[in-house]
Amino acid sequence: MVEQEFLGYINENRLFGSMDRVLLAVSGGLDSMVMTELFYRTNQLFAMAHVNFSLRGAESDADAVFVQNKAEQYGVPFHLIRFDTAAIAAERGISIQMAARDLRYSWFADLCRQQGYACLATAHHKNDVLETLLLNLTRGTGLAGLHGIAPKQERSDSAVLVRPVLFATRSQLAEYARVHALPYREDSSNADDKYARNRLRHHVVPVLNELNPGLWQTLPRTVERLRAAETLVDTELARSWTEVVVQHGQSVFLPAAKLLILPEVTFRLAAWLKPFGFGEEQTNQMLDSLSRSVGQVFASPTHQITHDRLADGNTGLLLESLQAVPKYEVTLTDWPDMPIDVAGQFTLTIDVVDKPIDFRPPVDSRIAFLDAERLTFPLIIRPWKQGDRFRPLGLRGHKLISDLLNDMKLTRSERQHTVVLLCESQIAWVIGRRIAHAFRVTQQTRHIAKIEFHASRLYPKST
Amino acid sequence: MVEQEFLGYINENRLFGSMDRVLLAVSGGLDSMVMTELFYRTNQLFAMAHVNFSLRGAESDADAVFVQNKAEQYGVPFHLIRFDTAAIAAERGISIQMAARDLRYSWFADLCRQQGYACLATAHHKNDVLETLLLNLTRGTGLAGLHGIAPKQERSDSAVLVRPVLFATRSQLAEYARVHALPYREDSSNADDKYARNRLRHHVVPVLNELNPGLWQTLPRTVERLRAAETLVDTELARSWTEVVVQHGQSVFLPAAKLLILPEVTFRLAAWLKPFGFGEEQTNQMLDSLSRSVGQVFASPTHQITHDRLADGNTGLLLESLQAVPKYEVTLTDWPDMPIDVAGQFTLTIDVVDKPIDFRPPVDSRIAFLDAERLTFPLIIRPWKQGDRFRPLGLRGHKLISDLLNDMKLTRSERQHTVVLLCESQIAWVIGRRIAHAFRVTQQTRHIAKIEFHASRLYPKST
Repeated sequence: MVEQEFLGYINENRLFGSMDRVLLAVSGGLDSMVMTELFYRTNQLFAMAHVNFSLRGAESDADAVFVQNKAEQYGVPFHLIRFDTAAIAAERGISIQMAARDLRYSWFADLCRQQGYACLATAHHKNDVLETLLLNLTRGTGLAGLHGIAPKQERSDSAVLVRPVLFATRSQLAEYARVHALPYREDSSNADDKYARNRLRHHVVPVLNELNPGLWQTLPRTVERLRAAETLVDTELARSWTEVVVQHGQSVFLPAAKLLILPEVTFRLAAWLKPFGFGEEQTNQMLDSLSRSVGQVFASPTHQITHDRLADGNTGLLLESLQAVPKYEVTLTDWPDMPIDVAGQFTLTIDVVDKPIDFRPPVDSRIAFLDAERLTFPLIIRPWKQGDRFRPLGLRGHKLISDLLNDMKLTRSERQHTVVLLCESQIAWVIGRRIAHAFRVTQQTRHIAKIEFHASRLYPKST
Repeated sequence: MVEQEFLGYINENRLFGSMDRVLLAVSGGLDSMVMTELFYRTNQLFAMAHVNFSLRGAESDADAVFVQNKAEQYGVPFHLIRFDTAAIAAERGISIQMAARDLRYSWFADLCRQQGYACLATAHHKNDVLETLLLNLTRGTGLAGLHGIAPKQERSDSAVLVRPVLFATRSQLAEYARVHALPYREDSSNADDKYARNRLRHHVVPVLNELNPGLWQTLPRTVERLRAAETLVDTELARSWTEVVVQHGQSVFLPAAKLLILPEVTFRLAAWLKPFGFGEEQTNQMLDSLSRSVGQVFASPTHQITHDRLADGNTGLLLESLQAVPKYEVTLTDWPDMPIDVAGQFTLTIDVVDKPIDFRPPVDSRIAFLDAERLTFPLIIRPWKQGDRFRPLGLRGHKLISDLLNDMKLTRSERQHTVVLLCESQIAWVIGRRIAHAFRVTQQTRHIAKIEFHASRLYPKST
């Protein structure tokens, strides 16, 4: 009966095929021992993996021995690893729970890759779904915190996770263990949440189950609806993002005029900017700032947002990368035959040609025509520095690069990523912006160095 | 302090203006008595309304007296009504709770309209939000069951509902009542839910509050996120509906080819068809039917859906109204000068003109050119009946109307709404479909009756 449901659930949700080898994450607790027994009794191909987190001394070691003995009994491959979780957590400055999860899943993913397992199976069940949902609801959440645990999920490290006992409640698994006299150890996972989950398990869930005896039948449908709703929300978020954003150099710009007419703009902006490290509090402040004059700046660990006015007069939010400005120096000792990759930031192509009779300076500032005889090797390419100065083409005096970039009304990120070409310590070209008067093509010029700048884009078109 | 929060909440959510007269729904219980006191102490313009549901005999009557005395004390207008709720519920075949809600809100809406109150205020608070959310979660729900109670809401009867004490928890209201020695009666509303709500209140909510002492601060944000998510889901549902549907006469058609590639089609279809009275179980079956041959029919109280194949060969779901076919007969005794409205179903315009030399029969079947001399008054317009027959233009013999409509591969709804024009008990035109041979324009015709049919659409373009 339970075996039938188990097989039915695997097939219905296409968790894995009958010839697939599945790696089971086995703590030795009730849930994972019942899952393993179900794999065994239904003749699936499987192996067992156990992580010793070294968090409960001899008890942890005894868990490992217990699971290993079971694997020998079943006659299946067994994988064991031991982590000094507490030390690693301290070293990385994260919680023990988070460290345990990271260590566990990255080891499982490695095992799947190296040993060719089709997927990793964990023993999550219906109570886990409800408890997680209630816990998230209690602590504050959005849709993502309510959508439960998926039967099948591909992780970003491309490992595939399956939950083949998600069809059952904890008490159904306990009943199965009792009927088959299955031994198991007390579950040691989720130590930090354990107290909260126990409170929910013993005090909250029984009341809900009393109010709706069909709770375990309605719950999966509720969760499925919320998961579907989340997909539609994501669709609408992606659609409206592409409608609103304007690419601005290497940054993106969200015009206030478009933002402020969007329904639920607070929610949208928070969702859009979350991947860039901004919190809800900040996005609320950004929206508030739009009703004041420009200039306010908001920073996340990786990005910054400025309430800014662009050259076309439009105001809005400018999203720029705070990517550390790379320090590098590229030296050219001869004219290159191939495009030069400059520290992964951009490429330059250089062609040296005879000056045509009808020479005209280029219109596009990404292309520089310089006097080739005037450029002597070595040439240096590096980011500009405070204090750098040069005489721009057509100007009488010298100018600080910082003033030039300010005058050009560039964004902070654009200013930061500006690079110069030097010849004998003199700036010949503020790359992509302006050439130096001394290196211009004159009537005496015989050969022209045509240098072209190709930038890569920092931002994706949509989140 | 509480008064400040109260005023702040009203302003922030723009519930009503300082000159607006607000009608308070007052049961006499803790929540509504505190709300009333807050209105009084902050000098708002208000009136009180109490409903006696006659559900607890003398106790109900005592509640009414208690509230009335309070209104006199405050010196504000008081409105009272008494319903025999149990009898009305039995008569309408609905639950007492539903009857109480219907009676209460329709009376409040009437009062607002007649007496010019700007809005109706109810005393919902934060615990109501959490309890409703948990109750819906327990019983099974979608996003709509989790989005809480809005601070301000316009009802379909155009009454405006406000919840000015939604900023407070039940215990904050109780503390306020204690401090100000406010008397109140045991709340009698929500009788059916009372047991469930009490269980949640005493056993579940305290555990959640222990797990997150900031629960009452995070809850409104969670609810706000879910409400915003719901708006985005609705936007995406409306957008994809217009992308998928094809208008087909008076019905709409959902092509299988477009449906089956939609992400989360099960969820979408259920949401789209809910307003037409179909349940989730049915929509799942409809999707299943698409992988079989056409013909399966699904009915709701007002509509039917057929897995059908259209004339262009496309298969899909055809949504038709089951609106009862109206019975009517329109008699014309002379040529009309104005368009004729036929029982609100469609209009006919009739022009009688000299036959042009270069006469060509119309291509559009919604226009009939008939021999005006052949049409003698009275003319009758009525729905076709089983047994009706005529000789279609160009055919040798007579044909049953039912056979003609079947041959034309019309939908059930289109067949049902087909109407005929009769002259001396003979069918001259199956309106919008085919004219009768005997009434055609011949070489002998001198005047032509040009009759044009204008249908109205039954379905909106999007839900």
